[in-house]
Amino acid sequence: MEIESYVVVHNIAKRHNVGTLARSATAFGVTELILVGRRDFNAFGCHGSTSHVRFRHFHSLNDARLFLKEKNCDICGVEITDGALPVNDHPFKRSTAFLLGNEGTGLSAKECEICDFFVYIPQYGSGTASLNVTVAASIVLHHFGVWAGFSERTRDGNKFIVAERPVKQGRRNYCAETSDSVIEERKLKKENGSNAFFDESKSGESSSNMLDVLFGGD
Amino acid sequence: MEIESYVVVHNIAKRHNVGTLARSATAFGVTELILVGRRDFNAFGCHGSTSHVRFRHFHSLNDARLFLKEKNCDICGVEITDGALPVNDHPFKRSTAFLLGNEGTGLSAKECEICDFFVYIPQYGSGTASLNVTVAASIVLHHFGVWAGFSERTRDGNKFIVAERPVKQGRRNYCAETSDSVIEERKLKKENGSNAFFDESKSGESSSNMLDVLFGGD
Repeated sequence: MEIESYVVVHNIAKRHNVGTLARSATAFGVTELILVGRRDFNAFGCHGSTSHVRFRHFHSLNDARLFLKEKNCDICGVEITDGALPVNDHPFKRSTAFLLGNEGTGLSAKECEICDFFVYIPQYGSGTASLNVTVAASIVLHHFGVWAGFSERTRDGNKFIVAERPVKQGRRNYCAETSDSVIEERKLKKENGSNAFFDESKSGESSSNMLDVLFGGD
Repeated sequence: MEIESYVVVHNIAKRHNVGTLARSATAFGVTELILVGRRDFNAFGCHGSTSHVRFRHFHSLNDARLFLKEKNCDICGVEITDGALPVNDHPFKRSTAFLLGNEGTGLSAKECEICDFFVYIPQYGSGTASLNVTVAASIVLHHFGVWAGFSERTRDGNKFIVAERPVKQGRRNYCAETSDSVIEERKLKKENGSNAFFDESKSGESSSNMLDVLFGGD
C-alpha cells in the first residue's frame, strides 16, 4: 500500500499562508492540497503549468471527508486538544490527510468532528500561545515524510533539484466547474456569505498575482 | 550543563520572516535571537516590555561567534551542503546556535566559515528547491527542543499558557549603544552600505510597526 499525505485547508484566511503552505506541501511530497469552501480557490488552483502541487476543491467538509475515506486516509487534526499526540512520536498508521485550523481560532467543532485523531507540536517557551499555521503544518508534514520513509529528493550541490516538468493539472479533475457545482456553490454563497478564502486580505491584491505569492522567493 | 539554543540572523531581508521567526523561537524555548548587522534591529530589539524572546545585537559575525564560543555553543548552519546531516537524526552535542541563510541566496561563504557543522531538512517532492526560511528554522528548533528534552509548556485546554510576565530586556544588555559601538557601526555602514536588515522591505512599513509584525496574529 502506497502511503500518501494530503493537506486540507478549510478556513485559512491569509493568502500568504496558503502560498507558504503550498511550498512546504511540495517540499514534503504531499499528494494534493485540498481546499474546502468557495471557489476563490480557482485563482491559484488552475495554474497547472507552473504549480508543482496538485490542488483539489470541495464545496463542503463532508465532501472532502468522503473523498479521503474512499482513499482509506486517516484525517488528522493539527490542534492542541486533550487527546492530541505529540507529532514527533509519529502516531501514524496509513495515508493521512492533515486538517489545519484557521489562523485565529484553530479548528472549529465541526472540523474536529471529521478528525480520526489529533497531533500537536510540543512547545517549550513561555511566550506565545500558538505557532504560525504554515510553520505548524510544515513541521507535521516533515514528520509524516520521515515516518512514511518517502524517498529523498536528489540534491545538486546546495539545492534540491527541481523537477523539470511540474505535475499536470487535468482541468477536468481539478478545476472544472460543472453546472451542478456552480449551482451548489451559489447556494452555499447565499447560506454562508462569509465563508470565503482570503476574506481578510487587505492589501488589494488581485487574484492574478496569487502565483507570485505561491512561488515567490521568500 | 544546561542546554540552550540560539538563533543567529545575519541577512534575513524580510520583516515578516523575522516576526514569524521570533514567534517560533519563543515557542521552542530559544534563549536569545541574535541579530548581526546594522542597528535597524533596534526597531524591534528594544521593546522588552512586550517581547517574550530576548534579542541581542552584534555588529559583526565574528563578534557573534566569540560570544557564542564563550558560552561553549556549537554553531550550526542550516543549509544544504555536502556534509550536512539530516536534522531529524538530531546530530547535536551541546548548546547550539543556528545560523540561518538569507532568503534568496542561503549562507554565504563567510557565514559557512564560522559553522561547526550543518544540518538540512530532507525533502521528498520534486517541485521546489528550498523551504521558506522561517519554516526551515522552525523545524530545526523543534528538533533541537526534542533532542534537548526541554520541559514542555503547560497547556490549558487547546492553548499553551502564555507567561504573564515576558522576559525582561535589560537595556544595558540588549540594546544599549555605547559610544564605541556607535562609532564601530558608522564605520561598518560606510564599508558595507548594503548589509542592512530589511533592505528589501518594499511596502513602506515604518520601523514603528515592527512589533505588530512580530506579534501579530497570523
